[in-house]
Amino acid sequence: MKIDGTAYRTIWLSADGWSVDIIDQTKLPHEFVIENLRSVTDAAHAISAMLVRGAPLIGATAAYGVCLGINEDPSDENLRRIGGTLIATRPTAVNLRWAIHRMQAYLQDIEVEKRREASYAMAAEICDEDVSICSALGDHGMTLIEEISKKKPGEAVNILTHCNAGWLATVDWGTALSPIYKAHNAGIPVHVWVDETRPRNQGAHLTAWELGKHGVDHTLIVDNVGGHLMQHGMVDLCITGTDRTTAAGDVCNKIGTYLKALAAKDNNVPFYVALPSPTIDWEIEDGVADVPIEVRNSHEVDYVQGLDSNGVISEVRILPEFSPSKNYAFDVTPARLVTGLITERGICPASKVGLAGLFERNVA
Amino acid sequence: MKIDGTAYRTIWLSADGWSVDIIDQTKLPHEFVIENLRSVTDAAHAISAMLVRGAPLIGATAAYGVCLGINEDPSDENLRRIGGTLIATRPTAVNLRWAIHRMQAYLQDIEVEKRREASYAMAAEICDEDVSICSALGDHGMTLIEEISKKKPGEAVNILTHCNAGWLATVDWGTALSPIYKAHNAGIPVHVWVDETRPRNQGAHLTAWELGKHGVDHTLIVDNVGGHLMQHGMVDLCITGTDRTTAAGDVCNKIGTYLKALAAKDNNVPFYVALPSPTIDWEIEDGVADVPIEVRNSHEVDYVQGLDSNGVISEVRILPEFSPSKNYAFDVTPARLVTGLITERGICPASKVGLAGLFERNVA
Repeated sequence: MKIDGTAYRTIWLSADGWSVDIIDQTKLPHEFVIENLRSVTDAAHAISAMLVRGAPLIGATAAYGVCLGINEDPSDENLRRIGGTLIATRPTAVNLRWAIHRMQAYLQDIEVEKRREASYAMAAEICDEDVSICSALGDHGMTLIEEISKKKPGEAVNILTHCNAGWLATVDWGTALSPIYKAHNAGIPVHVWVDETRPRNQGAHLTAWELGKHGVDHTLIVDNVGGHLMQHGMVDLCITGTDRTTAAGDVCNKIGTYLKALAAKDNNVPFYVALPSPTIDWEIEDGVADVPIEVRNSHEVDYVQGLDSNGVISEVRILPEFSPSKNYAFDVTPARLVTGLITERGICPASKVGLAGLFERNVA
Repeated sequence: MKIDGTAYRTIWLSADGWSVDIIDQTKLPHEFVIENLRSVTDAAHAISAMLVRGAPLIGATAAYGVCLGINEDPSDENLRRIGGTLIATRPTAVNLRWAIHRMQAYLQDIEVEKRREASYAMAAEICDEDVSICSALGDHGMTLIEEISKKKPGEAVNILTHCNAGWLATVDWGTALSPIYKAHNAGIPVHVWVDETRPRNQGAHLTAWELGKHGVDHTLIVDNVGGHLMQHGMVDLCITGTDRTTAAGDVCNKIGTYLKALAAKDNNVPFYVALPSPTIDWEIEDGVADVPIEVRNSHEVDYVQGLDSNGVISEVRILPEFSPSKNYAFDVTPARLVTGLITERGICPASKVGLAGLFERNVA
C-alpha cells in the first residue's frame, strides 16, 4: 500500500540483490526506518524483537531468513540449523513453521550449489502468493462492507478492528484491513474504530498509522471501549485477523479479541475473522484446550513506549516497582462467536464443515 | 488503610481546623503527595482533574468543598452557587449530587452564622458514614471469598477487579476491594488480578499500589487479558465497583467493566458489584438507555503517564499526530450479567426486586 504516495511492501530484496529490507515496525508511528537484514541472526532478531510481526509477514521474513542462511552455507546441516533458529523465535505463529518447512522441503531436493538462487526464488514466490491471497481475501470481504453500505446510503460503515492485521502485518494489503482498503479504494465510505491493543499498542502504533497514511477515516479507542460502542449501535461490523485458526474455526488472535467477540455476540454485531489459509492449523480443533498461548516478557506490560516531550521515542513505567505483572499475548475466540471466516477462497462459516468445504477436505 | 504502616484516610481536616487535606492520586504510584484544599475552586479542581476520584470520595470531597465555600461566604446565594460549581465537575457521578444536595438541604435550614460549624460537622458525618458503609459492605462481601476458599484449602482465591474501587476511591476500606482487605486481614489467602484500566491506568497506578502497600498478593494485567484467564479457570470471582447503579441493578462503571462481565458470564465465573447505597439511582432503570456517558478529553487516550528513565513523572504520546481518538469513560453492565450486588445491608440479586427488598422500597 502507499506511504505518502509511494507504494511499499513490508519486505523486499535490497538493491544489492541478496540482503533483505524491512520496515522497523517498532519505531512506528513516530519514525519511519528501513532495516537491512544480512544474516539468519538478523532475520531471527527481526522476528523475535517484533521489528516485523503479523503471521504472514513473519512467514515471509522467515522465508528470506532461510535465504540469508543459505547464502552463508547451503549445506543440509545448515538448512536444518537455520530452521531451528527461526522456529524458536515465536512459538505461537503457525505459518512461521509453514514457511520454513516449505523452504526446507523445496531446498533439500536441490543440489547444494543451486540452493542459493532457488531459495531467493522461493522466498519471492511466498511473498507474491501472500499478496495475491490478501488481495483475494479483501475482494471477498469487501462484499460484506458493500452490503451494509447499501443499507445506510451516504453514511460511513463503522468497522471495529483489534491489533494490526493490516498491510504492515502481511507483505501487502493485510488481512482484516484488506476488505477495508478495497472498500475505501472503491469509494465506499468507511470509518474504522481502532483498538489501541495493549500491551504493545499495535492499534495506536501501526493500524492508525497505516490507515491514516492511506487516507482511511479512523478513530483510536482504548481496548475497553468496544463493548460500549456496540451497545449503542456504533459498530456495524467487526473484522480481526488471526495468528492461528483451528480446523473447527476457533481463532487464536491477539489478546482481547475474545472480549470483543463476546460483545459483538451480545449486541448482534457481525464478527468476522480474515485469514490467509496458511494460518489454518488442520491438526487442532479445540483452540481453548490445545493452542499454546505465548507468555511474553512483563516489560511490555510494565512500560509504555511513545514520543516524549522532546520528540524522542522513549518508555515510561506505569506500575509501582513492587508490583508483578503477567503478559499473555493471545487468546482464543471459540468458533461459536465468529460469524464467518474471510479467506482467499471466499467467506465460510467458522466451523469444521465450513472450512473443509472451502478447502476441499474430508470431514471425519 | 495503611501506607507503610501508617493508617490513612483519603480525605481529612487539616491541622489548621478548616482547610482539607487529600492525597493527590494523579501522582501515584510514583510519588506520595498530600494536597491542601482551601477553597471551592480547589475542591472543584481536585474533583475535575481527578486528584480525587471514585464515587464515594468524590462525594466526600464535594461535601468538604461546600464547607470551604461556606467558610468564605455562608449566604443562601453562595450556598446555591457552590452547589452549581461542584456539580459541574463530573456529570456521571451520582453521589457527587447526593452529597451536595444533602449538605445544601441541611444547611439552608440553619442560621447563616451557624452554617460554618454545621457544615464541617455534616461533612465529617458523611465521611464517617462512608467508612462504616464500606466496612459493612466488606464484611458481607468477605463471605463470598470465604466460601470459595473453603473449596480450595491452602490455595489463594483468585479475584479479578477493574479500575480502582479500593480505599483510595472511598474515605477508607473501599468498595470492591473492601471484601478483599477483610479476607486478607482474616488470614484467607487471596490473589488479585488487577486490570490496568486504560486510559487512566487506575489499576496500575492505584489498585496495584494500595494492594501492595497493604501486603495483598496481586498481579497486573492489561485490560485485554481477563477473558483468557476466565477461559482457563484462573479467576474464581470478579468484584468491581460502580459509579451509578440503576433501580433495576444495571451498573455504570469504568469503561471495560461490561466486557469483563460478558467473559464472566461466558465462563460461569461469579461477577459481583460492590456499592454503597448512595450510588443507587432510584430514578433510572435502563442503564444502557438512560445513563449519560461522560466523554473525557482525548489527551487521556493519546498520552500515557509514567515514570521516565530519569525517574520523573512524564507523558509519552502513543499515536500518530494525524489520528483522532475518542474517550468514553464509562460503560453500562446490564443486570442480567451481574451475579449479585454487595451492599452495606447485605448481598442481593441485581434486580429491582433484589434492591427494593434490601432497601425496603415498594416495587411498582
